[in-house]
Amino acid sequence: MDGEQALLETATDRANEYEFWLRADISVENPVVNYRWLLDGIQNGYQWLNGTGLHTHDVTDASDFRISTHTAPPAWASEAVLYQIFPDRFAKSVDRPAPDWAIAEGWDSPVIGRGPETPYQYYGGDLDGIIEHLDHIQSTGANAIYLTPIFPSRSNHRYDASSFDRVDPLLGGDAALRRLSEAVHARGMHLLGDLTTNHCGNVHEWFKAAVNDPGSSEAGFFLFNHHPDDYVCWFGHRSLPKFDHSNPELRKRLYEGEQSVVARWLGPHGFDGWRIDVANMTGRLGATDLNHEVATTLRKTMADASPDALLLAEHSHDASQDLKGDGWHGVMNYAGFTRPVWQWLKGPSEVPFEPGPFTAIPRLSGSDIVASMREFSAASPWRATSHALTLVGSHDTMRISTMLGDLRLVAVALGLLASMPGIPMLWAGDEIGQEGVNGEDGRRPFPWAAKENWNSERLALVRALFEARKQSPALRQGGLRWLSVGDDAFTFLREAPGESILVHAARAAHASVRLPSETVGGNLRGLAGTADLHVAENGLFILPSDGPAFSMWRCGSTSQDTRWQQ
Amino acid sequence: MDGEQALLETATDRANEYEFWLRADISVENPVVNYRWLLDGIQNGYQWLNGTGLHTHDVTDASDFRISTHTAPPAWASEAVLYQIFPDRFAKSVDRPAPDWAIAEGWDSPVIGRGPETPYQYYGGDLDGIIEHLDHIQSTGANAIYLTPIFPSRSNHRYDASSFDRVDPLLGGDAALRRLSEAVHARGMHLLGDLTTNHCGNVHEWFKAAVNDPGSSEAGFFLFNHHPDDYVCWFGHRSLPKFDHSNPELRKRLYEGEQSVVARWLGPHGFDGWRIDVANMTGRLGATDLNHEVATTLRKTMADASPDALLLAEHSHDASQDLKGDGWHGVMNYAGFTRPVWQWLKGPSEVPFEPGPFTAIPRLSGSDIVASMREFSAASPWRATSHALTLVGSHDTMRISTMLGDLRLVAVALGLLASMPGIPMLWAGDEIGQEGVNGEDGRRPFPWAAKENWNSERLALVRALFEARKQSPALRQGGLRWLSVGDDAFTFLREAPGESILVHAARAAHASVRLPSETVGGNLRGLAGTADLHVAENGLFILPSDGPAFSMWRCGSTSQDTRWQQ
Repeated sequence: MDGEQALLETATDRANEYEFWLRADISVENPVVNYRWLLDGIQNGYQWLNGTGLHTHDVTDASDFRISTHTAPPAWASEAVLYQIFPDRFAKSVDRPAPDWAIAEGWDSPVIGRGPETPYQYYGGDLDGIIEHLDHIQSTGANAIYLTPIFPSRSNHRYDASSFDRVDPLLGGDAALRRLSEAVHARGMHLLGDLTTNHCGNVHEWFKAAVNDPGSSEAGFFLFNHHPDDYVCWFGHRSLPKFDHSNPELRKRLYEGEQSVVARWLGPHGFDGWRIDVANMTGRLGATDLNHEVATTLRKTMADASPDALLLAEHSHDASQDLKGDGWHGVMNYAGFTRPVWQWLKGPSEVPFEPGPFTAIPRLSGSDIVASMREFSAASPWRATSHALTLVGSHDTMRISTMLGDLRLVAVALGLLASMPGIPMLWAGDEIGQEGVNGEDGRRPFPWAAKENWNSERLALVRALFEARKQSPALRQGGLRWLSVGDDAFTFLREAPGESILVHAARAAHASVRLPSETVGGNLRGLAGTADLHVAENGLFILPSDGPAFSMWRCGSTSQDTRWQQ
Repeated sequence: MDGEQALLETATDRANEYEFWLRADISVENPVVNYRWLLDGIQNGYQWLNGTGLHTHDVTDASDFRISTHTAPPAWASEAVLYQIFPDRFAKSVDRPAPDWAIAEGWDSPVIGRGPETPYQYYGGDLDGIIEHLDHIQSTGANAIYLTPIFPSRSNHRYDASSFDRVDPLLGGDAALRRLSEAVHARGMHLLGDLTTNHCGNVHEWFKAAVNDPGSSEAGFFLFNHHPDDYVCWFGHRSLPKFDHSNPELRKRLYEGEQSVVARWLGPHGFDGWRIDVANMTGRLGATDLNHEVATTLRKTMADASPDALLLAEHSHDASQDLKGDGWHGVMNYAGFTRPVWQWLKGPSEVPFEPGPFTAIPRLSGSDIVASMREFSAASPWRATSHALTLVGSHDTMRISTMLGDLRLVAVALGLLASMPGIPMLWAGDEIGQEGVNGEDGRRPFPWAAKENWNSERLALVRALFEARKQSPALRQGGLRWLSVGDDAFTFLREAPGESILVHAARAAHASVRLPSETVGGNLRGLAGTADLHVAENGLFILPSDGPAFSMWRCGSTSQDTRWQQ
């Protein structure tokens, strides 16, 4: 409290042969309160229990549990399953002339994954195309859409915006976004936009004004070492000049107040939130670090303009220092979910992956990846972990089908996506088995006209998994309890008041895991294609030992139910 | 860099059968740069090497190595050995009448460790008394003195200051501090003061002005819930009203600018730095957290007033979030040094210790306490660890003699104090074996007149240990490399250009540790009473296996020497 530790008494809430539950009243005097459990009277000393597990020695606060009293994320977010769309490649409602920067491609032309043509291949997908396929999107179990940028630019990815004031006419313009938003909302779904706050395109109207006139307001939006030709840009890409967030006028135009870009595109005819591109670098340069100010200001603007708006941030490594609870609601959880899942399921390979500067993906044991997941999760408040964007692939990575091959392994990856804490994101096309060796190669046009090439087994699996999530408060909002972790399989519970879901993931055949009925209840009802399980002997359930396999059961009446009812 | 990770190539600097050294050029673009090593090509993957060791799975940044580019602490600090004095109990130069609040005691009267009389027992030690014993202090190897508060108050501990503008007349007043400072400086020694920034006494002139007049400037220095009788105070002690650091006038008077308390007492006739009391809670209350602003402002004021001033902070738990490099130079390292040492050396006990809210000290293995030391060290820049105040006891804890009993165990504790990274602090009296079951009980008057009761073996040990430190750049400023860690013994190297010191600490007899001469050099010259060691067989040194014992050797010419010379 107020920078000092306090030791509080705990009481044993309940216990059986296998487990015990402690209870303590914590006085929450600060916006974020850390705590850990001291298990006393053990052998010669004590053990600490924190977010990474039990420790026989004293630990820092890094993995403490955390209570955050900042405003909670919107309620819909914890119910959400996102469907990620890269607009140029999802669906085309009408043929339009290609713009001057583009290499026009037919819908079935091959994508060039790496080369000078890569950003300029233009397939002409648009927003009205998305409207035509909302049934499909919804059929996957997704109830929200995340669109990569829709502002005009001079590339197919549109991360080099030339304006934030209008929707790219190639996508159908402002009216098309309005139509899409209204259609999405009419179905009770939500829509997220994508905004670059770290930089814009060098074709952006603000940057052009800045270059043309060193005395202009816009000249202060950027970081000119020497006007006009020497300026700070993203990783040296001269097409992406970096913003100077110490500039009040930039803040006002981009994200501070109701007239800002961030506020204006929110609402019933626009977006329900933003995914912030390169959020981790935004406002950071040398000795300057305005990242927290940008995040909190942006959050406040969104809260004022649209209280139910969701704010997610791109981040590919440890984001815990940016997740204190008053800025981003969550981040793309590459570090604490995607990479561990890949590391566990993918075979050893020389292929590096993106994003991030890493070498080849190692093949790790279940213990290793669970340790990693726990460490990243423990570094942030639970609310940030439970609102992090979980994903097994995106427009920036190798496709999960290409990475894992074996449908059974893909099923494990998608099963974890549907069952672990976080806001799951399905990258459009993964549900039908799209391939791609890197992010760009995976941006293949959705083959609407070739349904015979869709992986229908995969599609059925996706639908079943997210249907199970939809039917389960525990999967959407429950806690997480690790029950068993081995090299080739691990087992956990998701628990919410009135419901417990048992999840077992295996990358290979393995020794049987046995669980007491005291922990998982009187019977296990299989979900999403998993067979029911009955108690075998001595009150123990024997889980399936085959693999790769993903299994999920709704627990019968358990001791937890008693607890929740108190 | 700027919030994004980068992967840099490393080169193997040199290697032998037992070890390899990597080299990389890191571009330091931000004030504090984190890094860790990726050891690639290991089995199916890679390992991360960070401040807590090797990890087969991905890790957060919590234990990264850190480069801090903030201004370094003063050079004298890394050479310093502090001698802590509680002025009422160290030495008395003259008899003075006891003040009205006091219970006058003769120098040999027993101290009451816990009771209503405890803060009021007055023995009459003073600053001129310290001057009379500078020879003794210096003979221990200490070259700096840290005085607990010397401002007037109404207790023997003086943490409830009634003014910051003058030295307590009971200690000899301003003139006595000037005499002490000049005498200390004439010996090339340094002098640290102790300041309460979290609170003052309710008898403080500022608080009295605040209570008398709600319209006074001083009324804004405190946090009145209801003037005048309901105010925020330290842990509910109404005698210690908490400061409101959002008040500009308080900041100015206490620590901002050259007229502030912090600045005025620094200099050749005053202090060479401050130890900040209850630093961890300063400026923190509910949703307000001004701690970083206080620390950085205080640091700047000190740097302006006296560039060589040292700023240390009281802290009894994880201070890493307060040790980014621009505030406190270091903290009292109870968490990362004192507690681990106690936990290793002390037997199981039901006796709780102070400070901190913990239960009885557990008895931990060497692996456990080294893990703890590494975790706390890794959480901060090395510069903070190497400038943390290491201690085995203070005016707030049980005496180390009382805790450990066995002189051989005390020798291990003091040996670690003299050989591990940090600024060692010797609590006055520990060098002669003073006892005390808690902090207050340990504040026994120094028995100058009863030298026959001094533990002369202990005193000789202390002198030898700190003499060795004085003669060794590696012990004072070197890096730290763990070589062997077992339950009952551990071994490490301190390494600096041109010198390596091998340290072996054992709490009990144990299996022999063998070390290759490639790592520790061609011969081992014993320090501080340790016998020399010669290579036994196959190029391996066999370290002594008895215990409790502390041993320390200067390494002969080693492979490191080659490295440092490059």
